Amino acid sequence: MPVYRCSVPIGVIADEHRQPLATAITDIHVEVTGAPRHFVSVVFEERPTGVTFTGGRPAEPTIISGFVRAGREREARGALLSRISAAWCEITGQRPDQLVLGLIELDPTSTMEAGLIMPAPGEEAAWVEEHREALGALLA
Amino acid sequence: MPVYRCSVPIGVIADEHRQPLATAITDIHVEVTGAPRHFVSVVFEERPTGVTFTGGRPAEPTIISGFVRAGREREARGALLSRISAAWCEITGQRPDQLVLGLIELDPTSTMEAGLIMPAPGEEAAWVEEHREALGALLA
Amino acid sequence: MPVYRCSVPIGVIADEHRQPLATAITDIHVEVTGAPRHFVSVVFEERPTGVTFTGGRPAEPTIISGFVRAGREREARGALLSRISAAWCEITGQRPDQLVLGLIELDPTSTMEAGLIMPAPGEEAAWVEEHREALGALLA
Repeated sequence: MPVYRCSVPIGVIADEHRQPLATAITDIHVEVTGAPRHFVSVVFEERPTGVTFTGGRPAEPTIISGFVRAGREREARGALLSRISAAWCEITGQRPDQLVLGLIELDPTSTMEAGLIMPAPGEEAAWVEEHREALGALLA
Repeated sequence: MPVYRCSVPIGVIADEHRQPLATAITDIHVEVTGAPRHFVSVVFEERPTGVTFTGGRPAEPTIISGFVRAGREREARGALLSRISAAWCEITGQRPDQLVLGLIELDPTSTMEAGLIMPAPGEEAAWVEEHREALGALLA
Repeated sequence: MPVYRCSVPIGVIADEHRQPLATAITDIHVEVTGAPRHFVSVVFEERPTGVTFTGGRPAEPTIISGFVRAGREREARGALLSRISAAWCEITGQRPDQLVLGLIELDPTSTMEAGLIMPAPGEEAAWVEEHREALGALLA
């Protein structure tokens, strides 16, 4: 956690957009929240065109769902959304009105990495230190 | 937002069911919540058969996940679920016991459309008026 | 509900792993929560390799998202995560650091099975009894 799932109609982003988008989303998450970089996952899911409707009419929005730990202030969450939206548009050439973004906030005690229940936002450093061995491959 | 993701085994719904299902879900969401129509997205995701289990046995349920803004009364949420379930069954011929529905409720300040943080339920009209220019393509 | 969505890179699990994984997740959910077995769904979603990044670098984590009803103690949620992680690794041979797990907790009044709003955790037995007819096919 976090996991950002980016559902994109086939053909909207080029293969070579994925790495810069993943880097941008990861950088933004780390800068805004202070969370450790090695826990940020970004998944690009291509979906067929013609299977999505907005306002009851065929549409092809990009839908970014961030599954993040709960406990962050409104300002931080707003910054995540605004900056991810801006970076996405800059890299892909999409317009902001072609994006829908949402953060699904999970109780930290309901999230697990490397077999370990995750700490609350802000308490990651001590947790990483304590569990350096179990987290080994992730920290590499 | 909202985004209704409808995960359906391949072959369960015909291509021509998608438009009436999207129209029905959009109509129901607007009628029950009063939210603006142009923000309702419906995505149909076909999944292979044979990859789903219910009660530990192979099964092929339709799974409808509505990512909606939090802040609506129990009665409204119940009406959303009941009416969407009924419309789905009427259009597709599935039985209610073949459907699983859930609403994932997001803090409105954790959702974004057209580069703008969304307002709380009930405050959409003033927000749309204020941001008419940024929302342009969505309102068209 | 619950619905456990297991997003797995193609090739990571064999077809014959699905049934034992579904059985294990279902057993664990029932043992830990006491919820009725026939409402536990497990979906395996294969995603292409090369579309996922962790810490900004290509990675292929397995991501397990459990959409469950809210209202369970921290201890029960921790047991769900720990035991599912352990069972997954035992059956598939993956290491714990290759798994990300999260529980998305839904208000029970925002969930529906067989056309019925679900009860709070712990109140399932009376609810099943009351609605035995509507739940018929699911209980079979």
